[in-house]
Amino acid sequence: MKDYSEYLALVREAISNLRLPEQPAGLYSPITYTLDCGGKRLRPVLTLAVCDAFGTDPMKAIHQAVAIEMFHNFTLLHDDVMDRADVRRGRPTVHRKWDERTAILSGDAMLTTAGMLLGIKAGDHLATALDLFNGTAMNIYEGQQYDMDFETRTDVTIEEYMEMIRLKTSVLLGCACAMGALMADADMETQLRFFDYGVNLGLAFQLQDDYLDTYGNPETFGKAIGGDILNDKKTWLLIMALSEDKTGTVRALLGSRENPQFKIDKVRSVYNELGLPERIHELISAYIDTAIKCLDHINLSPEARVFFMDLALRSASRDK
Amino acid sequence: MKDYSEYLALVREAISNLRLPEQPAGLYSPITYTLDCGGKRLRPVLTLAVCDAFGTDPMKAIHQAVAIEMFHNFTLLHDDVMDRADVRRGRPTVHRKWDERTAILSGDAMLTTAGMLLGIKAGDHLATALDLFNGTAMNIYEGQQYDMDFETRTDVTIEEYMEMIRLKTSVLLGCACAMGALMADADMETQLRFFDYGVNLGLAFQLQDDYLDTYGNPETFGKAIGGDILNDKKTWLLIMALSEDKTGTVRALLGSRENPQFKIDKVRSVYNELGLPERIHELISAYIDTAIKCLDHINLSPEARVFFMDLALRSASRDK
Repeated sequence: MKDYSEYLALVREAISNLRLPEQPAGLYSPITYTLDCGGKRLRPVLTLAVCDAFGTDPMKAIHQAVAIEMFHNFTLLHDDVMDRADVRRGRPTVHRKWDERTAILSGDAMLTTAGMLLGIKAGDHLATALDLFNGTAMNIYEGQQYDMDFETRTDVTIEEYMEMIRLKTSVLLGCACAMGALMADADMETQLRFFDYGVNLGLAFQLQDDYLDTYGNPETFGKAIGGDILNDKKTWLLIMALSEDKTGTVRALLGSRENPQFKIDKVRSVYNELGLPERIHELISAYIDTAIKCLDHINLSPEARVFFMDLALRSASRDK
Repeated sequence: MKDYSEYLALVREAISNLRLPEQPAGLYSPITYTLDCGGKRLRPVLTLAVCDAFGTDPMKAIHQAVAIEMFHNFTLLHDDVMDRADVRRGRPTVHRKWDERTAILSGDAMLTTAGMLLGIKAGDHLATALDLFNGTAMNIYEGQQYDMDFETRTDVTIEEYMEMIRLKTSVLLGCACAMGALMADADMETQLRFFDYGVNLGLAFQLQDDYLDTYGNPETFGKAIGGDILNDKKTWLLIMALSEDKTGTVRALLGSRENPQFKIDKVRSVYNELGLPERIHELISAYIDTAIKCLDHINLSPEARVFFMDLALRSASRDK
């Protein structure tokens, strides 16, 4: 096994070696811009690391890893149009820097390019890789649709929320892991177990994201704290508060944007009274435990086991 | 060989048998709505007919045929968002009936679904089918980008225009034909020749579209005549007029929307003086001839040859 940073270096090099056509620039420049965003590259690193864990050269899965990263960036691009987001990782979003139709068309091209990359040197695994990838993509669209549906609802349950983040965020981490196992010729059961590892990791990851948006350190988190509260975003925290806050304070503040800092402080104080920061961390720990238990059923070297345990534990305690 | 209407019936039945999930309705209802649009279904009919022409049961290519129709409808859906079109085939477009983000997300799901359909029972042809399909998709995005780039230019050449419609419209007809040949186990050379047939058919088809938008019968054409002129759309007719009209009449009317019927009549009278209606028909005939010549190099039964000749000749003389 290598370090995270070594897998990351392989991913970065593969992305920088992608040779997209130059013309028409209006189609391809936004793709390069989107891929240049940096980021943790968690998904392709998972693909390479899982492949490596079975003693297979991780470069055997490099095209599939980059395909998944390309797909992930496509979803961010189109989600930003749908959410009318102006900034992504400190830079203007594509539809702000160019325009909306450029963002739509370049996103479409990224989705097709992801499918092309997925097939490169996939060999006998092509059909399975495509089924895994396309099925995951459909789940992600469903998750995005539920997320949008939740905006106009105030009766979203925790079960509905967990299913939404499973679809929108977690299955892609599962897919990234299973793809690495597939490319390493691991059997179907092992692929499924690594899929489950990734899904549980993803659930923990998203809950930590919810937590950080309200409780993070603005300096390390990289964006303003409290955005979810201001936008009435149906996160685990808000849904719990809507269900448990007998004073009605949180519900009364839905829709209000008049005094942002007042709203953030007020809602956060209800979260604190209900013990939600502690309780979300208990939940995150439970998903991390479940992820680690998935590893027990996979035949892994001690070194590989430590790698994926560490990765899970770090996801739960990250501050950005 | 069957009649066009018989292949069409097979396509219609396959589309009506698609079992999309019901939930989330916001994602799947717009897909059903888009596919319900009717239309000539020219592309999937081509796929089935070409497959049949080689003595292979056309149903062997039914999933690939529907995949191409699904893809085509996805491009219409996203193009309508990009062009801010309100109406498609007499019905509100998806982004008007629902909203823009619904149109974006449902389109994404159609593109992924097309990729899934393409792989069903593709057997040994999976990798080739995907390469053909994805390469064609990239061409189509490039064509759409050029088409958008042309909006702000007044120096578009006929060569650039023909390349744009080759990419945006024609290669998908080529792909539909080649896909049918592939699924019938025809060799690569035959696939390429049928691809060329489809491309030339597509060029003729698009030029006839340009002609009908200005000279069609409003009753049979199904939409208002003169839309391209009013929108200064860089069609073959407008590009020729901009290059040949020494009076500057057409150039002076670019951007004007004040008196629509005056503008349409004035521009059309310049087209007439330059003999453009006759000249575009000569060009259309030349592409039809080229398409038919492609058939000469393919080993076809007389019956199959007549089918594809007829189809080409009818494309050139259609009035809707």
